[in-house]
Amino acid sequence: MFLTRTEYDRGVNTFSPEGRLFQVEYAIEAIKLGSTAIGLKTKEGVVLAVEKRITSPLLEPSSVEKIMEIDEHIGCAMSGLIADARTLVEHARVETQNHRFSYGEPMTVESTTQALCDLALRFGEGDEESMSRPFGVSLLIAGHDENGPSLYYTDPSGTFWQCNAKAIGSGSEGADSSLQEQYNNDLTLLEAETIALSILKQVMEEKVTPSNVDIAKVAPVYHLYTPSEVEAVIARL
Amino acid sequence: MFLTRTEYDRGVNTFSPEGRLFQVEYAIEAIKLGSTAIGLKTKEGVVLAVEKRITSPLLEPSSVEKIMEIDEHIGCAMSGLIADARTLVEHARVETQNHRFSYGEPMTVESTTQALCDLALRFGEGDEESMSRPFGVSLLIAGHDENGPSLYYTDPSGTFWQCNAKAIGSGSEGADSSLQEQYNNDLTLLEAETIALSILKQVMEEKVTPSNVDIAKVAPVYHLYTPSEVEAVIARL
Amino acid sequence: MFLTRTEYDRGVNTFSPEGRLFQVEYAIEAIKLGSTAIGLKTKEGVVLAVEKRITSPLLEPSSVEKIMEIDEHIGCAMSGLIADARTLVEHARVETQNHRFSYGEPMTVESTTQALCDLALRFGEGDEESMSRPFGVSLLIAGHDENGPSLYYTDPSGTFWQCNAKAIGSGSEGADSSLQEQYNNDLTLLEAETIALSILKQVMEEKVTPSNVDIAKVAPVYHLYTPSEVEAVIARL
Amino acid sequence: MFLTRTEYDRGVNTFSPEGRLFQVEYAIEAIKLGSTAIGLKTKEGVVLAVEKRITSPLLEPSSVEKIMEIDEHIGCAMSGLIADARTLVEHARVETQNHRFSYGEPMTVESTTQALCDLALRFGEGDEESMSRPFGVSLLIAGHDENGPSLYYTDPSGTFWQCNAKAIGSGSEGADSSLQEQYNNDLTLLEAETIALSILKQVMEEKVTPSNVDIAKVAPVYHLYTPSEVEAVIARL
Amino acid sequence: MFLTRTEYDRGVNTFSPEGRLFQVEYAIEAIKLGSTAIGLKTKEGVVLAVEKRITSPLLEPSSVEKIMEIDEHIGCAMSGLIADARTLVEHARVETQNHRFSYGEPMTVESTTQALCDLALRFGEGDEESMSRPFGVSLLIAGHDENGPSLYYTDPSGTFWQCNAKAIGSGSEGADSSLQEQYNNDLTLLEAETIALSILKQVMEEKVTPSNVDIAKVAPVYHLYTPSEVEAVIARL
Amino acid sequence: MFLTRTEYDRGVNTFSPEGRLFQVEYAIEAIKLGSTAIGLKTKEGVVLAVEKRITSPLLEPSSVEKIMEIDEHIGCAMSGLIADARTLVEHARVETQNHRFSYGEPMTVESTTQALCDLALRFGEGDEESMSRPFGVSLLIAGHDENGPSLYYTDPSGTFWQCNAKAIGSGSEGADSSLQEQYNNDLTLLEAETIALSILKQVMEEKVTPSNVDIAKVAPVYHLYTPSEVEAVIARL
Amino acid sequence: MFLTRTEYDRGVNTFSPEGRLFQVEYAIEAIKLGSTAIGLKTKEGVVLAVEKRITSPLLEPSSVEKIMEIDEHIGCAMSGLIADARTLVEHARVETQNHRFSYGEPMTVESTTQALCDLALRFGEGDEESMSRPFGVSLLIAGHDENGPSLYYTDPSGTFWQCNAKAIGSGSEGADSSLQEQYNNDLTLLEAETIALSILKQVMEEKVTPSNVDIAKVAPVYHLYTPSEVEAVIARL
Repeated sequence: MFLTRTEYDRGVNTFSPEGRLFQVEYAIEAIKLGSTAIGLKTKEGVVLAVEKRITSPLLEPSSVEKIMEIDEHIGCAMSGLIADARTLVEHARVETQNHRFSYGEPMTVESTTQALCDLALRFGEGDEESMSRPFGVSLLIAGHDENGPSLYYTDPSGTFWQCNAKAIGSGSEGADSSLQEQYNNDLTLLEAETIALSILKQVMEEKVTPSNVDIAKVAPVYHLYTPSEVEAVIARL
Repeated sequence: MFLTRTEYDRGVNTFSPEGRLFQVEYAIEAIKLGSTAIGLKTKEGVVLAVEKRITSPLLEPSSVEKIMEIDEHIGCAMSGLIADARTLVEHARVETQNHRFSYGEPMTVESTTQALCDLALRFGEGDEESMSRPFGVSLLIAGHDENGPSLYYTDPSGTFWQCNAKAIGSGSEGADSSLQEQYNNDLTLLEAETIALSILKQVMEEKVTPSNVDIAKVAPVYHLYTPSEVEAVIARL
Repeated sequence: MFLTRTEYDRGVNTFSPEGRLFQVEYAIEAIKLGSTAIGLKTKEGVVLAVEKRITSPLLEPSSVEKIMEIDEHIGCAMSGLIADARTLVEHARVETQNHRFSYGEPMTVESTTQALCDLALRFGEGDEESMSRPFGVSLLIAGHDENGPSLYYTDPSGTFWQCNAKAIGSGSEGADSSLQEQYNNDLTLLEAETIALSILKQVMEEKVTPSNVDIAKVAPVYHLYTPSEVEAVIARL
Repeated sequence: MFLTRTEYDRGVNTFSPEGRLFQVEYAIEAIKLGSTAIGLKTKEGVVLAVEKRITSPLLEPSSVEKIMEIDEHIGCAMSGLIADARTLVEHARVETQNHRFSYGEPMTVESTTQALCDLALRFGEGDEESMSRPFGVSLLIAGHDENGPSLYYTDPSGTFWQCNAKAIGSGSEGADSSLQEQYNNDLTLLEAETIALSILKQVMEEKVTPSNVDIAKVAPVYHLYTPSEVEAVIARL
Repeated sequence: MFLTRTEYDRGVNTFSPEGRLFQVEYAIEAIKLGSTAIGLKTKEGVVLAVEKRITSPLLEPSSVEKIMEIDEHIGCAMSGLIADARTLVEHARVETQNHRFSYGEPMTVESTTQALCDLALRFGEGDEESMSRPFGVSLLIAGHDENGPSLYYTDPSGTFWQCNAKAIGSGSEGADSSLQEQYNNDLTLLEAETIALSILKQVMEEKVTPSNVDIAKVAPVYHLYTPSEVEAVIARL
Repeated sequence: MFLTRTEYDRGVNTFSPEGRLFQVEYAIEAIKLGSTAIGLKTKEGVVLAVEKRITSPLLEPSSVEKIMEIDEHIGCAMSGLIADARTLVEHARVETQNHRFSYGEPMTVESTTQALCDLALRFGEGDEESMSRPFGVSLLIAGHDENGPSLYYTDPSGTFWQCNAKAIGSGSEGADSSLQEQYNNDLTLLEAETIALSILKQVMEEKVTPSNVDIAKVAPVYHLYTPSEVEAVIARL
Repeated sequence: MFLTRTEYDRGVNTFSPEGRLFQVEYAIEAIKLGSTAIGLKTKEGVVLAVEKRITSPLLEPSSVEKIMEIDEHIGCAMSGLIADARTLVEHARVETQNHRFSYGEPMTVESTTQALCDLALRFGEGDEESMSRPFGVSLLIAGHDENGPSLYYTDPSGTFWQCNAKAIGSGSEGADSSLQEQYNNDLTLLEAETIALSILKQVMEEKVTPSNVDIAKVAPVYHLYTPSEVEAVIARL
């Protein structure tokens, strides 16, 4: 009685007979093609670690930015279409700056995440800032506010969840299993760094070096690790 | 003489020869994929209970919000696309705040429900706030105003009904039958809590815990139960 | 030489080779799926009666509104998509209030009907208030103005007729025949009530109760019958 | 080498290889489904006569308006989609009132007709007042101005012609032949009334009564005949 | 390797692989369905003559306007869709009046023609005045300015040419041949009238009468011939 | 794995799998249907020569304008859709006049060419001045500014090149070969005239006369040759 | 279960089931059709070298601009659709000038690159400046700012990377391999010039001459080499 799914999957915002939005599901597929990113929350702060695919030795590794600062108390790791992620991050930076200006205090991590997802949800609506298709990117948002450290995970549908630990990207399935085995609430930040990088190492096809991974923490301020700081974590594996 | 239904079901706002709007019907299907939510009205107030699907032990249960406050005298439970629900709830929050500001008194539960449905109805119209497709979500709106407690049920077509008790989501069929058997007008709020949770327990595949259900009441003020309050209700089953 | 009709029927506003607008005809079909409503004009005033489909015993019957007040001298009964009807009624309420404010007197029943139909006609035009498809609803508009009582019937094409008596909805065919047999110009309002309800009773599948029918009159002021007033009419059958 | 005509006929404003605009031609078909209307010009004034299809004895005949006043010196009869005609008439009423206000004199009949056709021509252009499809209606415009009495005929393409006599609608073919036989320039208004009604009688399937025909004249002022005036004309047949 | 032409011919403004714009070519076909019009330039002035298709003896011949005045020194004859021509002529009238108002002198014939063609070219652009399809009309523009008499020919593509003599419409092929044989630069206006009408006579299926042709001249002022003036030209044939 | 090219060639601005924009390529085909135009740059100035297709002896040759002045120091020859060229030339005239007004000096030839190409590139963008399809015309822009004489060639993609000599239109292939053989940097303007016309003569099917070719020079001021000046060049062949 | 890729590749901004955006991938193909460009970063500055395809000896080589200045400290080389590149460069020039005007200091090379990519990403969004399709061009952006010399590479998706050396265009694959072999961080600017040109020579089908290559450096100021400077580099090969 119904057409096959293929007839419903090109309309940006069309329900299939089973109530599914295929363009959003396909955008989620885009993320499964992306590099792996991992986030872990500890009581001391949050750690983010990402794989960087350096396709040529002539590429400047530091220009492959897959972890970005949103505000001094919030950073995020991304997987999927990097140019889409930049638009979202830029939007979040404006929102957090406006909040500081208007209220004289930092925006909470949840409000920042909500603002990002509001933009993501409104694809296909013809708004000023929104896009004509879903954003093809997932984010791990790490932050620290009056409620302490927190880690959020967003997907292209504009939905978000708060997590203790989460992996996204092509290696996320294996990485999530490893995280469930190794995570506990009493991890130190140092242990979290080690776990993040050791799991990333398992899902990467190459040897881990300060050039092909990035690590950052928010504890309680955003800090992207220098190559030597990354080297130190690698040494601990 | 007519085409099969499949030819009419992709136009967002196209009547089929029998006078049906298929995109709205498919959006209603989206809700049948959603988690179950239950509402019961008593003379003392209204109880809402929802199933939370916690897909990973690393997910923070409190961040899976399926019951939300609209105003201090109104809350709602939802089933379907959560990001869509957020847009509706955010719209309702602005409406109720504006009403308080303009008239110095709370908005009635019916007017609030009407405002939500006006937005839901106008999908595909290219308005500022409306969406280009039906909202893929149903709401159970619980409130308390000068007419006492009330419970409303809305669907993606922008229609609403007032109910004594109602279930939505994947387990709604069985839950509605149970509600009809167990509901009467003289239930206490305590009995309503117990009925809601025992029915939810029947339709859930997992054991009920404070992590995978949420309960709230409006009696006469919105209150989301703490984990220990939920634990207490579970203990009474 | 021509395509079959099925090729012309999805364009919202496209003529078929025979000069027909199929989307309007399909919207008219939507009304044939709706509950039955009946109107009768007498010299004393106009009576409206509607069937209410109460799908669950937990539904609050009074929240299934199929008769609505437009102004104190005008009410209407509806069949078809209730959410569409609400938009039309809301539009008419604003128009009649504006008229009172501007001219210090009530709007005539015909002007109110005309205003409703102007909005209904402009579907697909991209206006502020109009919809992108025909309104899937028919109305029976009962009113009383300087010309005495009057009853109008509107359909999705934006056309209207003045009638002495009219039935709309799924049972309209049989009901219209009964009306032609039983109607005469000298009916009292009391007789009209009885006729309306007895005809409604014939086309309904269930027993008539104060919960599953609504009755209203405009004589000369709009009044929706209380359950006990409905009970009294039922008792007379 | 060409596609069959059926491939070109759904674009609102697309030429076929032979240079035809099918949607306009199909709108003209809509008029062939309409009731018959007849106009005759005499030196004393213009007569309009229309068939009214009274589908039910409970319908109020006077509410089936197929002859309408535009200004006190101009009236029109219509065939086709009545709701479309109302939009055109309303537009013409505003134009003639504006003209009186700006220039202190009545608008000529030709300018009024031109204004109507300008609106009809611009379908599919996305203007404020224009429609997204051709207007599915033809008008016979009767008027009296400084050039004496005149009769115009408009069609959905926005073209108009001045005539001595003209029939439109489902019976127009036979009626036009009869008009050519019976018309001469020296007819009195009384004779014109009789001819109009006798021809209408031939093309109608029912007996002619004051309920199912309307007659109007502009001589030099618009006047819609009362039932008794219509009865008098019928009596003369 | 290419599709057949039929795949490219419905897009309003789409090039075919050979670089053709079919919708413009089809609009040109619309003109081949139109009545024949002829223009001749002499040193004394320009003559325009058109066939009028009087489809019924009850039609007022003077209301079939196929020659129109643009300004007192410019007139035009047309073939194709008359309603389209009216829009172009109305545009040209505004342009020439504005020019007189701004510069205190008449607009040249070439500038007027250019203004018409600018509007014709911009079909499909969504402008205020432009149409969503090509204008289905050709014009012969006759004028007299500081450069003496001139005759221009425009087509639906927005292109124009200056001519000594030109025929458009269904009989244009034969008429153009006859014009080439009979035209010379030393024709008097009287001779031009005779040639125009004699050629029109050849391509018309009916007998030429003052009712079914119109003649006008610009010498140096626009003048539409009265029926008796037309009769005089017919008498000379 | 790919579709054939025919599936990509109707979208105005759609890349094919090989990265091609077919609508632009088809517009370039439109130019191959056009008449031939030739430009040569010498140290004394630039010569432009075009073929004029005079389809009828009654056409006024001077009204077939295929060489136009842009400013007193810039002219252009064109091949393809003449109405499109007029839009571009009119745009360039406004730009050069604005430049003179704002800066008190003539616009350079390169800036003028750039301004033309900016407009040509933005087809399909919905701007005020841009078109909904590529401009179907190529231009040879001849000018003289502070850098001396220069010749530019533009195509429908909005790209331009500076040349010493160039031919466009249906005979461009043969003409370009001849130009490469005969061109050298030391040509006098007189020799350039002779070469241009002799090459044009080879590719034209008719005898060259002052009626069917136009010649212009910019040396350093734009000058369109009079028929007798053209006759003099013909005489030198 | 899925359609083949060909069904998803024409929507400008539609995800395929695997999460790919084909129109962007096809635009990237457009660059593989383009001429080769090479960039090398040294401590002394950045060198850019491009192949110029001179299709005719009559073309002015200097008018084939494939290296352009953005600001005095930034230049770029391009491959793909040149007209698209001009739009991007013009946008960047305005941005850098505005930055100088607002902040009194040059814009950094990264910010300039980011501004270019923001524009490139927003294709299909209907903005003022953005295009309706991806920009079909890649850029090598060479600059010098407070962080010393830098080289960026952008692609049609709006993504950018910082590189030590990079080749784009039809010969990029081979050229990139050669660059990896020959590049080291201690190259002098003189050595970089020689490497760039020798690699370009390998991938070009013709002999390298000052006419068919362009070289530029930013060290620390943008300078496009004169023909004799290019000749000098050629001599060193």
